[in-house]
Amino acid sequence: MVQFFGTEDMARLLREMSVGVFSRQLCDYIREDFRRWPLFEKSARLASHSQQGVIELMPTSDGTFYAFKYVNGHPVNTASGLLTVTGMGVFADVATGYPLLVSEMTILTALRTAATSAVAARALARPMARRMALIGAGAQAEFQALAFEAELGITHIDLYDPDRSAAEKARANLVAISPLRVEIAESVGAACANADIVTIATAVKGRQAVLKPEHIRPGTHINAIGGDCPGKTELAAELLRRGRVFVEFTPQTRIEGDIQQMEPEFPVTELWQVLTQRAAGRERAEDITIFDSVGFAIEDFSALRLLKDIATTGRAGRGLDLIPAPSNPKDLFGTLGLKRMVAAA
Amino acid sequence: MVQFFGTEDMARLLREMSVGVFSRQLCDYIREDFRRWPLFEKSARLASHSQQGVIELMPTSDGTFYAFKYVNGHPVNTASGLLTVTGMGVFADVATGYPLLVSEMTILTALRTAATSAVAARALARPMARRMALIGAGAQAEFQALAFEAELGITHIDLYDPDRSAAEKARANLVAISPLRVEIAESVGAACANADIVTIATAVKGRQAVLKPEHIRPGTHINAIGGDCPGKTELAAELLRRGRVFVEFTPQTRIEGDIQQMEPEFPVTELWQVLTQRAAGRERAEDITIFDSVGFAIEDFSALRLLKDIATTGRAGRGLDLIPAPSNPKDLFGTLGLKRMVAAA
Repeated sequence: MVQFFGTEDMARLLREMSVGVFSRQLCDYIREDFRRWPLFEKSARLASHSQQGVIELMPTSDGTFYAFKYVNGHPVNTASGLLTVTGMGVFADVATGYPLLVSEMTILTALRTAATSAVAARALARPMARRMALIGAGAQAEFQALAFEAELGITHIDLYDPDRSAAEKARANLVAISPLRVEIAESVGAACANADIVTIATAVKGRQAVLKPEHIRPGTHINAIGGDCPGKTELAAELLRRGRVFVEFTPQTRIEGDIQQMEPEFPVTELWQVLTQRAAGRERAEDITIFDSVGFAIEDFSALRLLKDIATTGRAGRGLDLIPAPSNPKDLFGTLGLKRMVAAA
Repeated sequence: MVQFFGTEDMARLLREMSVGVFSRQLCDYIREDFRRWPLFEKSARLASHSQQGVIELMPTSDGTFYAFKYVNGHPVNTASGLLTVTGMGVFADVATGYPLLVSEMTILTALRTAATSAVAARALARPMARRMALIGAGAQAEFQALAFEAELGITHIDLYDPDRSAAEKARANLVAISPLRVEIAESVGAACANADIVTIATAVKGRQAVLKPEHIRPGTHINAIGGDCPGKTELAAELLRRGRVFVEFTPQTRIEGDIQQMEPEFPVTELWQVLTQRAAGRERAEDITIFDSVGFAIEDFSALRLLKDIATTGRAGRGLDLIPAPSNPKDLFGTLGLKRMVAAA
């Protein structure tokens, strides 16, 4: 049987493990995979564009396991009460080609995006960072806050969203299940005023420059999530020049990330190089470090790899009859049991 | 809920509908989609190669629906009792990007390959064809025989496989559920001696030339299934020159099909052009027509489209909780029900 995690399995798993414990484990898996970055097959996404949005397949492999994610991006969906981004993923065995696990990846993508942010921040932010501004209280917000609490020990969140009800939703969700102190700020500047880390995950399309140099104190780490597709940025160009920029996979980020607004030779450092000590991260306490995150297939691989290990220990998931198991590999037809029906007739 | 067809759902559906009725419906869906061929987005497969085999993603879209198949090819698998080829597929809505259906595609691929063969043969074979040679009694054999019975009215099968037990397996499976008269032949030549149609689906790697001009009577239609990847062919080059060759998607077949052994400008006709009367099929009763089949993404699309229509009428399939359904699209976190757990504690 192929292991399966549906939305209900994910919810149950997170209720039992807590989002914090799951996030910390996921950070470990992501860090481990980023540290063996050169080993992975990194292909371009296979995208199918339409007027309404895009559907993408994102595969990768480490030579032992193969994973891909199906993911859509349809900004029009919210108008009809649907999610902008949904996803599902498959984790497979390279040696046999058999799928081992199928999972929902709408919730899992939110968890892996937040965990990747936390991995980057732990490597790049000042060690004593405890207060985080959170700009944008959409679907990502709570996952980011909880991953940062779990992985960095963040204790205070200053939340800003132009939609006050979204900010209140995120605060209510967070204070109900965590000891985080969450305050709603009245502006981007107010949210950032005392921040050690600024996480920005806004949904508005276009080149927005939501975050400007005047909002940012020296020494801040900026975790920029929402500038993640062509034509959509959140950071002012001057802010990008003021800091040192770290990315997942340079060719992809130059197209999709906030640095799409910069010249092609704008200097960036890949996060995996910091995690393997091949490149410097933060050099001075007053540096501004910026993680320009767009999401990469290896993060999905890590998340599916964790789920597979959880499923293997029998802690969660269900079996799904996705692959026939004929006693004779030449007798696929025999697995249908058609003979028995006729015999009984 | 996303509709799901596992192996047990497929087996139940085929028991209830019969393989013949399902195959006829699938032929209609494939013919319909081949007739609107230019409408489809046709991208290359995304392949991940390893020492043991290959894992591929095969997407396509007609602008309204999007489908992809995950499929592996691992010839080493049979040594450990596993299937060489397994698959799963997803059918999605282009307008929202939401997956609508997930299905096993090991059985479904066998059904769609056989149905595509039957569609081609119905367009290319002589109308009175009733006797088919079947060379190779592997996993494809019964599906081919039953699709040809259903779609063309084939009544006799002359079966040859160097592995006698495989031939006996296929005969036993077929006579148990169909009125087909099935005879086991002692050689390729003997199987083909009285054939109107020759279906060849062998598994041996390399350039094999299993079928030669001397085996084939004038007027025969050849349905060549097993020459389907680089380095693997079944037909003698002289036989390909003797007949007129029809293919699914020329650029793919020149790499994967039996015509990989011919010069790049070797003339072929695409099946969809015959089905839309843009190109001639069989011109004379004594012509030898050859369908050099490798399998194409549109056939998977057609098969998933049929399953989706079957699921919509509630006749089969199960619901799978693959996509969260938050009441507020900004509150993905709220779907996890974490608050409630804490409130109960």
